Amino acid sequence: MVQAGDDLPTLLFNAIDHGALGCKDGDILVVCQKVVSKAEGRLADLRQIVPSAFAEQLAQQTADGKDPRVIEVILRETKRIVRMDSGHLIVETGPGWVCANAGVDESNSGDPNIVVLLPHDPDASAARIARAAQTRYGATIAVIVTDTFGRPWRQGLVDFALGVAGMSALQDLRGTGDLDGRVLKHTINAQADALAAAAGLVMRKGDAIPAALVRGYEFTPGEGAGTQLIREKQFDLFR
Amino acid sequence: MVQAGDDLPTLLFNAIDHGALGCKDGDILVVCQKVVSKAEGRLADLRQIVPSAFAEQLAQQTADGKDPRVIEVILRETKRIVRMDSGHLIVETGPGWVCANAGVDESNSGDPNIVVLLPHDPDASAARIARAAQTRYGATIAVIVTDTFGRPWRQGLVDFALGVAGMSALQDLRGTGDLDGRVLKHTINAQADALAAAAGLVMRKGDAIPAALVRGYEFTPGEGAGTQLIREKQFDLFR
Repeated sequence: MVQAGDDLPTLLFNAIDHGALGCKDGDILVVCQKVVSKAEGRLADLRQIVPSAFAEQLAQQTADGKDPRVIEVILRETKRIVRMDSGHLIVETGPGWVCANAGVDESNSGDPNIVVLLPHDPDASAARIARAAQTRYGATIAVIVTDTFGRPWRQGLVDFALGVAGMSALQDLRGTGDLDGRVLKHTINAQADALAAAAGLVMRKGDAIPAALVRGYEFTPGEGAGTQLIREKQFDLFR
Repeated sequence: MVQAGDDLPTLLFNAIDHGALGCKDGDILVVCQKVVSKAEGRLADLRQIVPSAFAEQLAQQTADGKDPRVIEVILRETKRIVRMDSGHLIVETGPGWVCANAGVDESNSGDPNIVVLLPHDPDASAARIARAAQTRYGATIAVIVTDTFGRPWRQGLVDFALGVAGMSALQDLRGTGDLDGRVLKHTINAQADALAAAAGLVMRKGDAIPAALVRGYEFTPGEGAGTQLIREKQFDLFR
């Protein structure tokens, strides 16, 4: 169980070395947001939260009888409410992520009075881990910080990328040809999201596996950021 | 290049055996919709399509100057238009998939006059391939038929599951405990979507790789369907 102030890269690398894997050039280390946020102290103590009247009102409408103090924490992380219906709260966070409850999470916090917020800057969190890998292993790796989100139209949760370092979050195939020689006009793959989803298959909640090492995926190392994955509001039909 | 009427399972298994992989119990064969649809003859010949006045009107509004006959094909596959804005057409298909252009695709069709539709019943398509694996290898495998979709709020495309056989599309963790012993109330993972996204990492458009074999993922073999992934309209905040 990661604690506020823990040296997360060292904890991760010790676990990786325990598995005799090490980190090599071109590896992608996928880390769930929960341990990143906990190490960074991105926590809220509900005993110190006084819910607003609005938070009290919303709490009464929630599907699962949410604590009004949790709603208050969610509202403090919220830039804009995208949907508020059927007891659900889908919001846009400060950095621009659209997700339920602003990513505020009550599970695995280690204390029923503590809720976990999203990292303040997941790209910076990812970059710190990538730099630490360079120092410890001399290896240039990519890092993806993930969270688990629901989706419109589809049942079930999938892991998505929030923070990205060492690679582009997007793989731009525009201008390349399909098998008929037809030029692809729209094909930009969200490779960081696909990697997050893939890693999520082995990072099951309750199994205490907060990270996965992806080896063998071909990509071009370089600059990148999770914020590349945020669709700008003016191009978004669902905000 | 797969043709209408081709025996797709045999083509896939020959390729798998060429790679000396075979199919074993517990394998998951992920197959892109394109080859499934082509083998099943789910194609429309634009030379035989007369666009309606509505299709003509919509074509003029599309972002990329779409052929009105393609719009006509899309409308014929559409049960309900979910969003029609900025030159994009997000629709609900007959079976209930919400996606751009009803999944009608102009790329890799093998002929500029031919567009490819989604399989009529992707679950049945997946089940046919799974049964063929049982016959050829005596192996009980799962099969996922995928397509590549955009997402609200997020840039870039990711592969999703349409058809599923031999496994549940969802992994229901409700009732199990988190690391604090707190009972998970909402955690249902869309494992078939995560597997589709993972496989998509090695099935890049233009590389002529229409399938991937996933080996080593732990799941409970059994009944399942891609339609489990469709969120019912009354529980969907974005339809």
